Amino acid sequence: MKAAFIQHTGPPDVIQIGDLPDPQISPEQVLIRSEAAAVNPIDTYVRRGTVAMDLPTPFIPGSDVAGTVVQVGSNVTGFRTGDRVWATNQGLLGRQGTLSQLVAVDAKWVYELPDGVEAADAAACALTGVTAHLGLTRVGAKANETILVIGASGGVGSMVVQMANALGLKVIGTAGGPEKRDAVIKLGADEVIDYLNSSILDQIQQLAPEGIEILWETRREPDFEFAVQALAHRGRMILMAGRDARPEFPVGPFYVNECSLHGVVMFKATADEMRQAADDMNGWLSSGQLKPLVRKSFPLDQAVAAHQLQEKATLEGTAAGMGKILIHFP
Amino acid sequence: MKAAFIQHTGPPDVIQIGDLPDPQISPEQVLIRSEAAAVNPIDTYVRRGTVAMDLPTPFIPGSDVAGTVVQVGSNVTGFRTGDRVWATNQGLLGRQGTLSQLVAVDAKWVYELPDGVEAADAAACALTGVTAHLGLTRVGAKANETILVIGASGGVGSMVVQMANALGLKVIGTAGGPEKRDAVIKLGADEVIDYLNSSILDQIQQLAPEGIEILWETRREPDFEFAVQALAHRGRMILMAGRDARPEFPVGPFYVNECSLHGVVMFKATADEMRQAADDMNGWLSSGQLKPLVRKSFPLDQAVAAHQLQEKATLEGTAAGMGKILIHFP
Repeated sequence: MKAAFIQHTGPPDVIQIGDLPDPQISPEQVLIRSEAAAVNPIDTYVRRGTVAMDLPTPFIPGSDVAGTVVQVGSNVTGFRTGDRVWATNQGLLGRQGTLSQLVAVDAKWVYELPDGVEAADAAACALTGVTAHLGLTRVGAKANETILVIGASGGVGSMVVQMANALGLKVIGTAGGPEKRDAVIKLGADEVIDYLNSSILDQIQQLAPEGIEILWETRREPDFEFAVQALAHRGRMILMAGRDARPEFPVGPFYVNECSLHGVVMFKATADEMRQAADDMNGWLSSGQLKPLVRKSFPLDQAVAAHQLQEKATLEGTAAGMGKILIHFP
Repeated sequence: MKAAFIQHTGPPDVIQIGDLPDPQISPEQVLIRSEAAAVNPIDTYVRRGTVAMDLPTPFIPGSDVAGTVVQVGSNVTGFRTGDRVWATNQGLLGRQGTLSQLVAVDAKWVYELPDGVEAADAAACALTGVTAHLGLTRVGAKANETILVIGASGGVGSMVVQMANALGLKVIGTAGGPEKRDAVIKLGADEVIDYLNSSILDQIQQLAPEGIEILWETRREPDFEFAVQALAHRGRMILMAGRDARPEFPVGPFYVNECSLHGVVMFKATADEMRQAADDMNGWLSSGQLKPLVRKSFPLDQAVAAHQLQEKATLEGTAAGMGKILIHFP
């Protein structure tokens, strides 16, 4: 099969494109013929070695995939050859990833692709959508609560906006500049704060004078000083990025206001939690309430360019635009 | 009635002892003849003005009281004259406190004193016990989980140890020196780490190699660096002190391990939450599973000395010994 793979960690151009042996599935796995895969920031951290994981050699990067089942392990009951499916949680913790024509995935991490939903859309929503669902579930998000999504046009942020909207929350997003602002409105946010042109805190204090119930932080330098000023009594804050960040933490305002802070990371979720997320996502994908922002889809043999663009967007902030970077397959 | 009161905030000796008019109860209040009251750190912060609150003039400090009902408001149904009761949440947010022979308290914050339980014991457990119960409830503490209580011989810490023990958790406490160590063992801790003689982290990694499920932090300088190393996956940390602390927060280890952090403060609890706490505490006071450590009981006319000792113990750390400071009444 054709695959993108690395022999050792490093910058994007350590990725090679070539032929690897077809994967052999275990009795618990299905083999998926890939139609679409996604590139996530975590894929670039693993490929670069900044998030150290034991990797097989060669290692195929990539967390998300959507396609068609072409082989089913003997212990798998939920899937048949020909089923259209999507999956995430690959390319992590020693597992091979998804940037290959064939991907062997444990069935516990495979979900039906609903009729009428494009493979590219499911792949683009996979890791980010599951992450969004896990966080909203962890803090018990409820209809009519107000959520502030920092970075609402981003990968996870855009999923949170749509899911919170589907769940009946009042959604305030932040976005930088008119293009992203318009995109976040289209995603379903009730209000968008353009942080290039106004103080987020000033706007929040006008839009939600009693404070916000949920603060979804996506920045790699979380701002707790802002958080304790923006949160309502017993407000909940979600943390999901910022591996090297060590900001000051204002203990007094946090505990006196009885706030809580919740770390969430997709690959620590249980299979049951992920399936619950996938079930809800499938419903929203089918109804049109969940739709990814897509920046660009690269053919597999341009995986290096795809990783370069992801790093420019996430690490360097030097790529204009927004939306998910996808890979499509020959 | 005799009372301890202040005309303005300041050091302990702004407290005067004298006669004030008997309180007039509202239809929702009961009037309690005080037998015992307690001194808490928060009382000293309010008296000194370091926690700014609008205060009546004169202002009577004190959060906790136990005694006998001598008058019942016309809208109060749950209490009768002669009932022995305890209460907390007074002396805060504009309410008069408890260092007086008579105290008017909203009935929603008044709890039966069970037969056989001494007034001094209930007063000594009141604010600290409710705080402990709120925190354990907030994080959903369950039997067989491991909790680490930092400052296990302290006011709240000693309550947490006993309640966690009553709930069936495995309790590890920290204490400084052999006297406090022995006290924490008597409170029911399974293990005590003497932080004067060993590294808490080294000991925790031996006692709970998978990490601790719950970390109860009581220090005025919470240590998040320690916390992220000590906590298990999805471990929960409780914050309840450290108004001026601004420690660094290690974002990466916190969210990758999906930890959560929960602020708790007694006076933000609902009346229902406090009654639930009081109900459980009454059960444990009756069974002997909850018993305060008492340092010293002062007569009302030595309220200045009581506040001085509280400040030495909490703010300066210059008072040897441990246990609650109480006031008894003429």
